Amino acid sequence: MTKKIMLMGATGSIGTQTLEVIAAHANLFELVGFSYGQNIDKAREIIKAFSPKIVVSAQESDQQQLAAEFPDMTNLFGEDGLIELVRTEDYDILFNAIVGSVGLLPTVEAINLGHDVALANKEAMVVAGYNIMTDAARTGSKILPVDSEHSAIFQVLQGVACQDDVRSLTITASGGSFRDKKREELVDVTLAEALAHPNWSMGAKITLDSATMVNKGLEVIEAHHLFGVPYENIHVVLHRESIVHSMITLNDGVVLAQLGASDMREPIQYALSYPKHLKMHNEKPFDLTEIGALHFEKIDLVRFPMLDLAYRVGKLGGGYPAVYNAANEVANQAFLDGKISFLEIEQLITRAVFEHMEFDGQTLNQILATDKETRQKVRQWIADLTSDKEEENNL
Amino acid sequence: MTKKIMLMGATGSIGTQTLEVIAAHANLFELVGFSYGQNIDKAREIIKAFSPKIVVSAQESDQQQLAAEFPDMTNLFGEDGLIELVRTEDYDILFNAIVGSVGLLPTVEAINLGHDVALANKEAMVVAGYNIMTDAARTGSKILPVDSEHSAIFQVLQGVACQDDVRSLTITASGGSFRDKKREELVDVTLAEALAHPNWSMGAKITLDSATMVNKGLEVIEAHHLFGVPYENIHVVLHRESIVHSMITLNDGVVLAQLGASDMREPIQYALSYPKHLKMHNEKPFDLTEIGALHFEKIDLVRFPMLDLAYRVGKLGGGYPAVYNAANEVANQAFLDGKISFLEIEQLITRAVFEHMEFDGQTLNQILATDKETRQKVRQWIADLTSDKEEENNL
Repeated sequence: MTKKIMLMGATGSIGTQTLEVIAAHANLFELVGFSYGQNIDKAREIIKAFSPKIVVSAQESDQQQLAAEFPDMTNLFGEDGLIELVRTEDYDILFNAIVGSVGLLPTVEAINLGHDVALANKEAMVVAGYNIMTDAARTGSKILPVDSEHSAIFQVLQGVACQDDVRSLTITASGGSFRDKKREELVDVTLAEALAHPNWSMGAKITLDSATMVNKGLEVIEAHHLFGVPYENIHVVLHRESIVHSMITLNDGVVLAQLGASDMREPIQYALSYPKHLKMHNEKPFDLTEIGALHFEKIDLVRFPMLDLAYRVGKLGGGYPAVYNAANEVANQAFLDGKISFLEIEQLITRAVFEHMEFDGQTLNQILATDKETRQKVRQWIADLTSDKEEENNL
Repeated sequence: MTKKIMLMGATGSIGTQTLEVIAAHANLFELVGFSYGQNIDKAREIIKAFSPKIVVSAQESDQQQLAAEFPDMTNLFGEDGLIELVRTEDYDILFNAIVGSVGLLPTVEAINLGHDVALANKEAMVVAGYNIMTDAARTGSKILPVDSEHSAIFQVLQGVACQDDVRSLTITASGGSFRDKKREELVDVTLAEALAHPNWSMGAKITLDSATMVNKGLEVIEAHHLFGVPYENIHVVLHRESIVHSMITLNDGVVLAQLGASDMREPIQYALSYPKHLKMHNEKPFDLTEIGALHFEKIDLVRFPMLDLAYRVGKLGGGYPAVYNAANEVANQAFLDGKISFLEIEQLITRAVFEHMEFDGQTLNQILATDKETRQKVRQWIADLTSDKEEENNL
C-alpha cells in the first residue's frame, strides 16, 4: 500500500528533492496533490509526471491557466486554496516545504484533522510551536521534522527509552558563508558572497539565514518545541564540515549523533518512510576516513548576535519568536532584493524585537496579528532606510 | 525493586568498576554473589561492602579461608563453583567480567537457564558465539554487551525499527600503544611500552591485545555474532581519540554514532540499567569543543595482520576463532611473563591458526577440546622457544 503525500511548496529546493524521493520509491509513495508559488512551468512538469488530483497555485492567473490545461484536476489558488488542499480527505501525510510563515495555517489545519505532518517549514514551528505541539498531542498527529538537524535528533531519539533520559540537545552549525569574517568585515559583503554556502546547496532564503545565523536561531526554537527540551539544555556548536547533523546527550553523559553526507533527500526520505530507513537512490558517497577529521568549536554569541537573540525571544515566548521571524523574513527578502545591507538585517530584527511589548503571552490569532504588524513595521523601516539612502546619493 | 546481579570476575578492572556502578545506585542494583581470581583481600572488602549470599574463589585454599571468616555465606571454588554460582536461582542478570574463555561454560549455563547476561567477556562470544546466540534466542535471554564498542552499537541500534535497515557496522580502534610504530620497530618493544595505552585504562591482557590489534579482531567476531551482521559489513577504522565508540550505517547512508568520555563505567551501567540511561556518578567531563577534532583513518591490514587474521578465522567459523583466541591467550600471557617477544605473539597465533585443520564445523564440546588442545600446543611452542633462547644465551 502506498503512502499518500500532499506536498506544499513543490517547486522549491526541498519540494523538488521531495519529488525526487517520491519518484525513486514509486511503489511506496504517491503524490496526491501539491501547491507551488511562482513557477508554473515546473508545476506543469510535476502534474505530467505525478498526475496529482489537486493543485494549488499561488496566483489566480496561474490557477486559471492550469484549469484550462488540466480540467480533470482540482485547481485552487492562494491561501484559501492551501486550506482547501489540506482538507482533502485522502492523504496520509502533509509535507510542508513552504518557505516562511505562510505555511502555518494549513499546517495547523492538517494537524487538527489528525494528519501526520512532515515539517520542513521551521517558521511555522517558531511562530506557533506551542499551539502546534498541543494540537498534535490532542489529535495524535505525528510531527516529522525535515530539517537535517532536527531529523538527526529525531532519529537518535528513537533509541531512547524515556524522555527523562535526555539531558541536552546539541545542534551543529556550519557557521554559514561568513563564518571566517569578523564583524567589521561584514559591513560591505555582497549578495553573491552571502549565497555561497560552504557545505549545503539550499534555497536563497535559508542560505542567507545561515550567514546571519538566524537559521540556527530558528532551529533552536524549533527544537525546543519539537522535543520539549528547555532552552538552557539546547546547545549550538560550530562544526565546519556539517557531517554530524546533530546530537543528543543522555543522563549518563553518552552522546548519540547522526551523521552523513550533506544531502537533504535523506531527512526528507526518513520523514516519509519513518520509522524505516529505506535505500537511497543515487546515494552520495560517504566515507569518514576520506573526510579525515571532524572539528567542533564553541559559538561566539557576540560574533553571532542573532543566535543570542533567538534564545532570548524563545525564552520570552508568546509573540516574541513571531516578531523575530517576521522581521527576519522581511529583512532577508530586502537584502536579497538589494535594498539593504547585510548588517541592516540584524539591526532590523533587533529593533523589531526590542520595540515589541507583551506581558501575558498570546493566542494563535494574536500571534498572527503580531506577525502581520511586524512585517508592516519592518517594511516601513526599510522604505525609510531606502529613501534616506537615495537622499544621501542625491546630495 | 532492585535488580539482582551475579558478578563473575569481581576483582578485575571491569569487575571493580561494575561494583562502583552498583554502589552508586544501591536503590536499583544489588550484588547477590560474585566470583574472583587471586585477590582474596579485595574479595574480603567486597563481601564486607555488599554482603553477598554466595562467593566463588578460584583457589580451594582461598575458599576455605573465606568459609571460616564468613560462615553464613555460601563458599565455593573453581570452575565447578562458577557453574553452581550461575545455577543459584535468585538473580536477574549475570555480569560476566571474567577475562579469557574460562567464562564460557557458566555463561552458556546462565543463558540456558533463561537469565540475562551482561557480557564483558568477549572471548566467550568469540569461541562460542553461534551457540550462545542460538541458545539465547531459544530461552529469551538478553545478551547485553559491555565492551564499549559493542555497547555503542547496541545503543544506536535501539533506534532502528528493523534489522534490515542496517547496512554495516563500523568499529573504531584507537590503534593501541604501538599505533605509530612501523612493523620493523616492533622487534624489541618492551612490556612497559605495550601496557601504556594512549586512551584507556584497562587490564593488562586487553591493553596488550590492543597493541597487537587482536582485541579489535576479537571485537569483529563478537560483533558478527551479537548483531547478526556478515563479516564483509563489519568495518574497522582507526580513530585515535577513542571518542566515537562505534557506529552503524543504515540503508539510506545515515550513520548513527555513540560517543563520549573514555569511561568503562558507562557501558557497564547501561548493561545494568538497559534500556534506561541513568545518571552517572562522578561523571567524567566531556565537551567536544574542548577536544576540538576527531580523526578517522583507514586501518592498514598489513601493519596489523592480527586484524586481518581475525576476519579470516571469523569467516571460516567452527573451531577457528577458538584457535585464534586460545593461542592469543597463551601467547599474551607469555609476553606478560617476559617469556616471548612482542612479535612472537603474532607468530604463535598465526602458526596455531594455519596448523588447525577442520572441515565440518564443530559442536561446542569439540570447540572446547580444540581450545584446550591449542593451549597445550602453543605452551609447548613457547617452551621450545624459551629453551632455544637459553641455548643461544649459553653459546
